[in-house]
Amino acid sequence: MASRPTAASDGAPDEAKSSSTKTNVKAPQPSKRQRASTKYKHTFAVHSENRTSCLSSDSTEEPPSFSGFRNLMGLVLVVSNLRLMMENFKKYGVLVTLSGSQIRKGDWTWFGILYLLTPCFLFVAFAIEALAAQYAKSKVADKKRNEEREDKQQVEQSKRHAFLTWRVIAFCHGFNATLMLAIATWVVYFQIHNPGLAAFAQLHAVIVWLKVCSYAFTNRDMRHAYVNVDPAEAALPELYKSCPYPNNITLKNLSYFWWAPTLVYQPVYPSTDRIRWDFVARRAVEFFFLSIVIFVACAQYAVPLLQNSLNDFSNLRLVNLLERILKLSTISLVCWLAGFFALFQSFLNLLAELMYFGDREFYSDWWNCCDLRSYWTSWNKPVTHFMKRHIYAPMVGRGVPPALASLITFLFSGLLHELLVGVPTHNILGVAFFGMVFQIPLIYMTDPLSRMKSRTGRLVGNLTFWLTFCFFGQPVAAIAYFFAWQAKYGTDNRPEWPLQGMGRR
Amino acid sequence: MASRPTAASDGAPDEAKSSSTKTNVKAPQPSKRQRASTKYKHTFAVHSENRTSCLSSDSTEEPPSFSGFRNLMGLVLVVSNLRLMMENFKKYGVLVTLSGSQIRKGDWTWFGILYLLTPCFLFVAFAIEALAAQYAKSKVADKKRNEEREDKQQVEQSKRHAFLTWRVIAFCHGFNATLMLAIATWVVYFQIHNPGLAAFAQLHAVIVWLKVCSYAFTNRDMRHAYVNVDPAEAALPELYKSCPYPNNITLKNLSYFWWAPTLVYQPVYPSTDRIRWDFVARRAVEFFFLSIVIFVACAQYAVPLLQNSLNDFSNLRLVNLLERILKLSTISLVCWLAGFFALFQSFLNLLAELMYFGDREFYSDWWNCCDLRSYWTSWNKPVTHFMKRHIYAPMVGRGVPPALASLITFLFSGLLHELLVGVPTHNILGVAFFGMVFQIPLIYMTDPLSRMKSRTGRLVGNLTFWLTFCFFGQPVAAIAYFFAWQAKYGTDNRPEWPLQGMGRR
Repeated sequence: MASRPTAASDGAPDEAKSSSTKTNVKAPQPSKRQRASTKYKHTFAVHSENRTSCLSSDSTEEPPSFSGFRNLMGLVLVVSNLRLMMENFKKYGVLVTLSGSQIRKGDWTWFGILYLLTPCFLFVAFAIEALAAQYAKSKVADKKRNEEREDKQQVEQSKRHAFLTWRVIAFCHGFNATLMLAIATWVVYFQIHNPGLAAFAQLHAVIVWLKVCSYAFTNRDMRHAYVNVDPAEAALPELYKSCPYPNNITLKNLSYFWWAPTLVYQPVYPSTDRIRWDFVARRAVEFFFLSIVIFVACAQYAVPLLQNSLNDFSNLRLVNLLERILKLSTISLVCWLAGFFALFQSFLNLLAELMYFGDREFYSDWWNCCDLRSYWTSWNKPVTHFMKRHIYAPMVGRGVPPALASLITFLFSGLLHELLVGVPTHNILGVAFFGMVFQIPLIYMTDPLSRMKSRTGRLVGNLTFWLTFCFFGQPVAAIAYFFAWQAKYGTDNRPEWPLQGMGRR
Repeated sequence: MASRPTAASDGAPDEAKSSSTKTNVKAPQPSKRQRASTKYKHTFAVHSENRTSCLSSDSTEEPPSFSGFRNLMGLVLVVSNLRLMMENFKKYGVLVTLSGSQIRKGDWTWFGILYLLTPCFLFVAFAIEALAAQYAKSKVADKKRNEEREDKQQVEQSKRHAFLTWRVIAFCHGFNATLMLAIATWVVYFQIHNPGLAAFAQLHAVIVWLKVCSYAFTNRDMRHAYVNVDPAEAALPELYKSCPYPNNITLKNLSYFWWAPTLVYQPVYPSTDRIRWDFVARRAVEFFFLSIVIFVACAQYAVPLLQNSLNDFSNLRLVNLLERILKLSTISLVCWLAGFFALFQSFLNLLAELMYFGDREFYSDWWNCCDLRSYWTSWNKPVTHFMKRHIYAPMVGRGVPPALASLITFLFSGLLHELLVGVPTHNILGVAFFGMVFQIPLIYMTDPLSRMKSRTGRLVGNLTFWLTFCFFGQPVAAIAYFFAWQAKYGTDNRPEWPLQGMGRR
């Protein structure tokens, strides 16, 4: 290298082009040519102007794009999780088994009974409503007759009678709905041991229960609007005109509501004109694969982790427990995101397509939210719609301050969460409920962030949301309920939880 | 809940506002008011139009922003690495020690000698160049005299004499540079046992060696341009006009080059007009903290990992080794990024500010690059400038095809890498060299990607770059050299590598 300067000295570029240059030492006199400007290669001024480093804050240029680092982040996430999967495989081998056969036969029986029984209450509600519609029709006929006769006493009497009838009907609806939830909860809590099957049964029951409530509430209001023919009737949405009360009280209408991907009853829904079968197929495939992902993630990764954390939990080793919670957070996040997509995107869209159901807004972009309030109102639109229409709005309409109304709505939602988690795991711990209650101060704390226009405020809000939700909320609840389950059932070696034996000490 | 419909039935909103509404059962007849439109709360049409889910591909709206998921990615990365740090702490405790005292005394002595000796060769190069400048001045005077006399024979003789002199001078420069590198390499390889100290000494020697080469090459060209007063002289950059050859051959000028954050000699550099001491302080703090981060990352995370992988390496357990490499990749990535920032942003900017050095473009946004060629030309601008000006451009200027020239440049760069890694670890394995050679096919493979305009092509290129560089290149090299080190020195329990005992079997 060091001797190359000699060999290379001033070889005229044009002459050298045709022959070997390295050994061919030319006379040092440079030829005077036009291309001389390219000759003194080593003198080129590399540093010709003042420039700043592109990461310096005093840089006058546009800051560079960091999209490469974003790609790197994604890559590191994928690779580090691949590594964890390898580590898991080395440690445990394959844990995934088709554990359906391990569920007790009694569980299946009760599950089947409950699954078939639950919708019956929807039809009971229909029967009640059909009677009410009959009565309402006769009321309207009476009213017309009385008004023609101008019989004031008769009108008063009729009103009193109607008032009592409406109360009886409301009581019937209430009794029907309460009975249904009570039966379902009793069966799930006392008869279905397997928590997965129990959770599914309870979820189904709660969904149908909410449908029953919505059916009763909506028809009550429509019935009153029908009976009291007044300007208020004009307040009913345009959409309902094609099927006014009591024409909507039909089995067909109810059956549509039963299967429609919504918890809110309307006599008429916006609808599509045809079923796109390729759309249905794609959604079905998505749902199928995501279900497998969730199943594998739980059996292979979450369960061993939960098992390993039992000892730390019972001895209250806080550092270890925190480490476990952090490790669990990734897997619960994956399950949550996959589950969200499977349920709200794939399944509900599939159902909507099959039902010609037009309004597919089952969620909005909750992942960008920078306050917890908007998260809670945007991730699960079917429930949000129910809460808004049947709990929050009526309360506010009757003069409850909005803040109090939203608090009550939230507490109700907390109760539903506890019902969906505590009952199937046979431990009404209140963690799910108080997890929801704990959201309330957070909502008020993050509310100002959503009003901030600055990027930082929104970023802080978004990170707060992710932190509370994905890192602390879910894994903590999962560990708590798993621990309670183990404390209650750990000694009898029922095979419902894979690896039950491994986790025991 | 189920009995609430009764209580809530049609309570007139306006009347209820002032009093408790829940127990106050009103007559069912609604009052006919203007605000009736807000009365039948439960009938509100939630589903009033056809809408798509925002994640559906058939959505007609703008796709939603996914910035929330980007934030989540960052959060997951931070949290999962926090977890790994906790796991590491549980397993190993604190491994970081101030190991400076564990380095042999002889190492420090040789390091000091080498550190002081190295710059001397720069001054030898100056002495040679000063003599050459003297001769050049006399040559120019001769030439003028001869041209006045039009003594052709004298001119020819003078030319021959000059030719010989230039060759002698070039030989002296070459000998000086070669001797310097040879001495440094000998000292590092045979006398400095500690690999960290050895790497630092070797890095310093290579930097000064490159400066010596650049000084010799540049002045050679400038000298020839000076002696042969011809139009080619006009080709010298404008910037140099303020200090033409031989005025630049001064000790002050050389000392500036010695400390300037560049490997490319120019008689004149663009300069700033003052030192911003707050800038200096910030860069110094950055450098200090990043150095600590790197030190801790190596001692606490990388060394145990490397120790653990020794057994898998010697038994060629490939799956385990792959798992180790993946785990190592994260830590080597952190070290690399921190090291890059510490050296290229903090340290070089600090040095530049102190030296009034204007051109701070020590790197460009290599993290966005979508082909390996642009990575290699943009992450380390000082070396790229050297390679371009003193190796690639002169070769191309003398007719070497550009592809071959860049290949040779790359091989030279590979040699330098091996020199910087193999010599300090006392194992010239060639992994660093062949790691570089392996880049060449990758460069040709990724070249088409950079010409693609599509996002996908650029993404694939960027991911290929990150994968080869951060996941396979560095960790594999680190394991290879560590293993070779252990194989060579593992038996004598010198305390240079923390945890040496733990890793042995």
